[in-house]
Amino acid sequence: MRKPYAIGIDIGGTNTVFGIVDARGNILGSSSIKTLKHSDVEAFLDDLYTGLTGLMERTGTMNDIHGIGVGAPGADRDGVIEYAENLPWKMPVKLAQLISEKFGIPAQVTNDANAAAIGEMMYGATRGFKDFIMITLGTGVGSGIVTDGKLLQGHNGLAGELGHAIVRPGTGRMCGCGRIGCLETYCSATGVARTAREFLETKPEMDSLLRNIDIENISSKDVYDAAIKGDQLALEIFEYTGTILGEALANFATFSDPEAFVIFGGLAKSGDLLLNPVRRAFEKNVISLWKGKVKILMSELKDADAALLGASAVGWNVR
Amino acid sequence: MRKPYAIGIDIGGTNTVFGIVDARGNILGSSSIKTLKHSDVEAFLDDLYTGLTGLMERTGTMNDIHGIGVGAPGADRDGVIEYAENLPWKMPVKLAQLISEKFGIPAQVTNDANAAAIGEMMYGATRGFKDFIMITLGTGVGSGIVTDGKLLQGHNGLAGELGHAIVRPGTGRMCGCGRIGCLETYCSATGVARTAREFLETKPEMDSLLRNIDIENISSKDVYDAAIKGDQLALEIFEYTGTILGEALANFATFSDPEAFVIFGGLAKSGDLLLNPVRRAFEKNVISLWKGKVKILMSELKDADAALLGASAVGWNVR
Repeated sequence: MRKPYAIGIDIGGTNTVFGIVDARGNILGSSSIKTLKHSDVEAFLDDLYTGLTGLMERTGTMNDIHGIGVGAPGADRDGVIEYAENLPWKMPVKLAQLISEKFGIPAQVTNDANAAAIGEMMYGATRGFKDFIMITLGTGVGSGIVTDGKLLQGHNGLAGELGHAIVRPGTGRMCGCGRIGCLETYCSATGVARTAREFLETKPEMDSLLRNIDIENISSKDVYDAAIKGDQLALEIFEYTGTILGEALANFATFSDPEAFVIFGGLAKSGDLLLNPVRRAFEKNVISLWKGKVKILMSELKDADAALLGASAVGWNVR
Repeated sequence: MRKPYAIGIDIGGTNTVFGIVDARGNILGSSSIKTLKHSDVEAFLDDLYTGLTGLMERTGTMNDIHGIGVGAPGADRDGVIEYAENLPWKMPVKLAQLISEKFGIPAQVTNDANAAAIGEMMYGATRGFKDFIMITLGTGVGSGIVTDGKLLQGHNGLAGELGHAIVRPGTGRMCGCGRIGCLETYCSATGVARTAREFLETKPEMDSLLRNIDIENISSKDVYDAAIKGDQLALEIFEYTGTILGEALANFATFSDPEAFVIFGGLAKSGDLLLNPVRRAFEKNVISLWKGKVKILMSELKDADAALLGASAVGWNVR
């Protein structure tokens, strides 16, 4: 029989957030520790153990945990982190095994974008959907692909690296991955800031609130703030970003024939400023089979809780 | 218990080929009827029934058929053909239901590219593979995507329309689907002929055997024939085609993290002329996670039998 609670652990480069969640996505209690403080994974696990046992005691759930779900960058399908730029530990880290041994509770680890997709399917905008693609617009662009009700894993557990789909072959922007024209160079928060700097330089004739900000420090938040005040240049930046994303989604549809796309992450908070051009470009570029048939939704996971909820959703799936 | 034989039916615009196949892919007997002759699907089914019962009698397999697999253009996941340009019947056609009722044997229908992928997994180059993508280079470009050992279907059973992934956004060739820059405008047999006409016009300085052929009637076969004779222009056409396909495959890898791509169809017969530039472009363009790790294989299904074998493989999967 399934026990009534799951633990979610979201491991980020700076903080690790963890909590105890029920089957409807209510968080009974949560807390966090610094990830970066622990250059040794054992010390990290000790701290995590102390924090989580305290939380289980406080919430009286010690014997009622079904499983532990972990979202972490770079995890493969066996829950091993081979490589993760932002984590301080000696790789590879057999994280699923270590956590499950430490707590005596089965644990499953997946990458953070995949966790978000499972969280959305369990508690969010795509409850009951069996085929959808979640796009996370953060510092980078991540994605989690659900087909036939299950996360698409791929041969190495690395499926869904859609941020590195090339959308401007040959002529595009240099990406951190060493290639040219990746989606994430345009549609991440950093991509939006990059577009802002580019537009400010290439459109000298346009006045803009963004010209009051030091050009090197412009953020996607600045662009959003200017856009909601009606700043034309800022609006054009959203139009540009949304158009590229909508074109990319039209291509992604040819792959897995999704019922919906769900947009998630910091940039998704821009709402219709972003989604309107995304939807227009999607409809314009998608093959006629899918015109008017694919939903483009905003995530319904509360932002502060989304990573934790996503991780906990993975905890329901452990054997 | 599984019975020892499956029926495969491949419905093409011109001919419908059918046969009886064992679990190792040996064809016990096969035959064909004209598809186009029957503007009425009932008459088509009557003819098919006569042909197949004759075949079952001749091979003594009447009571030993596990299931009927059908490959047909435009089939959705319920085995209904909503729309197929090349088929003469009044749509929609509930083909799976009609065939299964007619023969009293469970039938499953899938589109021809998907059938080829299942055939390859059962009898061909990807026996034992659980994650691969089959690309069919024919008049158009089709694809079948296998993830975790199963065909990726999608919400409407239309997953794997990779021929209509846009590879040259904005600047590309006009596609039959009404959009610009689709993969199939470059990497199908007709795409190769189009490249030949383009190169003959834009490279007037290059001598070529292809200049002896009426430019409007050049086929991909002509380009192949010239290329194996060392014709420089023809070789450049293969280089161009293979490079675009390799770039596209690099993008497709970000989606489903495949162990292999299998190339199939008329153009695949060009062998290394095509595959060498495909492999080069793939390695150059794929994200480092996958460099050197993804196989690019030729189909091992005998060409004349491939469609039939693919369809029959679907017949093993019926409940």
